[in-house]
Amino acid sequence: MAQNIYDNASFFAGYSQLPRQVKGLDGAPEWPAIRAMLPDLAGKRVVDLGCGFGWASRFMREQGAVSVLGLDLARNMIERARRDTADPQIEYRIADLDALELPAAAFDLVYSALAFHYVADFARLAATIRRALAGGGHLVFTIEHPIFMAAVQARWIADESGRPTWPVNNYAQEGERRTDWFVDGVVKYHRTLATTLNTLIGAGFAVTAVNEFAPTPEQVAAMPALAQERERPMFLMVAAETAVR
Amino acid sequence: MAQNIYDNASFFAGYSQLPRQVKGLDGAPEWPAIRAMLPDLAGKRVVDLGCGFGWASRFMREQGAVSVLGLDLARNMIERARRDTADPQIEYRIADLDALELPAAAFDLVYSALAFHYVADFARLAATIRRALAGGGHLVFTIEHPIFMAAVQARWIADESGRPTWPVNNYAQEGERRTDWFVDGVVKYHRTLATTLNTLIGAGFAVTAVNEFAPTPEQVAAMPALAQERERPMFLMVAAETAVR
Repeated sequence: MAQNIYDNASFFAGYSQLPRQVKGLDGAPEWPAIRAMLPDLAGKRVVDLGCGFGWASRFMREQGAVSVLGLDLARNMIERARRDTADPQIEYRIADLDALELPAAAFDLVYSALAFHYVADFARLAATIRRALAGGGHLVFTIEHPIFMAAVQARWIADESGRPTWPVNNYAQEGERRTDWFVDGVVKYHRTLATTLNTLIGAGFAVTAVNEFAPTPEQVAAMPALAQERERPMFLMVAAETAVR
Repeated sequence: MAQNIYDNASFFAGYSQLPRQVKGLDGAPEWPAIRAMLPDLAGKRVVDLGCGFGWASRFMREQGAVSVLGLDLARNMIERARRDTADPQIEYRIADLDALELPAAAFDLVYSALAFHYVADFARLAATIRRALAGGGHLVFTIEHPIFMAAVQARWIADESGRPTWPVNNYAQEGERRTDWFVDGVVKYHRTLATTLNTLIGAGFAVTAVNEFAPTPEQVAAMPALAQERERPMFLMVAAETAVR
């Protein structure tokens, strides 16, 4: 059973105030890059793993998806999703990604934003997703970048000239990382970038695009605080298709 | 025309003393991982881009490759290769990877170790390699990892506890990096990991394996100085095949 930090009241109170939760998809600077990685959604059967408040699930429906299954571990999330992004063709359900079961060949797109780094066994999850996809199916997901997650003390430092610099150590040591984010002891799982990609390939996916999010100059002009996200890769975004072999 | 640092006498004198140059392939700790990424070499026509002293070219022949074309920009390298790793089925030739021309569908494996990060236009090179490969052809290469190359001041620091820590900044800013390595002003080209992979995919490759070299515990036991290479990814190693589309 994965840690369910999102149902912790203190965590949820802080998390709910993030721009991306208040403003929805447009509050996430990486959203345009994610959107560019999505296939044409018309007629697609979608599952949204770690759906949160349902912003992306609703977007999929608006873009023509015929059905969306939104899954999240947190009751808080699912309740808000059912309230705020209700749609007769979206089903919101509580589910633990570490124990995920999905029907075979039942979906055309598996989507997930910033959830897989909470999953301990990515190989199990990738195999489950592969089986759940119909032929020609797509997987598009984002995680915290392994460079962002690896270090024992993962916080900004300055180089000799004062430039914002991100520390990397402990990179080859995969496994649990504990971080303090709204509350103490949020548990995440570090995997190298190679492990993430090789796990997908091993599960029967062809990787079609990789993106290590960096804000565009226009985004930095509009929100100068984003500039430091050009110094380090914060998010890893991957698009893959079921491989023809 | 790429910078030809390897024909600088001061550089070459220092470079030639590296364990990997003195001992050959066994002097490179990443060699077992590279070897595991190579296809069966029996009957293969191979081109070795940035062949250096020819250690890998000779290995390919020993493993059954029918022919090897070893290319390097440095006259110093090619002369040593011709002297030390001569073989009637290996041809060593001077060539600039930035202006590489290869015959179409003439090779089964393109191999390159620690050369592509000197190349300014990787998209041109990837397209050239793709055309030079016969159907079902393989590409296996290593480069300095983009995390290793990115920072303005790319050298070890310590975190608050004294742990060896690698600084990352300037990651999203691709292009030239100048470093001092035996001589001042060695020119390399930083590309994000995403750009490297997307360029391959765009050129018509399916990525089949990625490795971010880290020494094994056994390697660290035998050579304790290698321990710090578990803190950061130093090399990026990629295996790809011509895609069936």
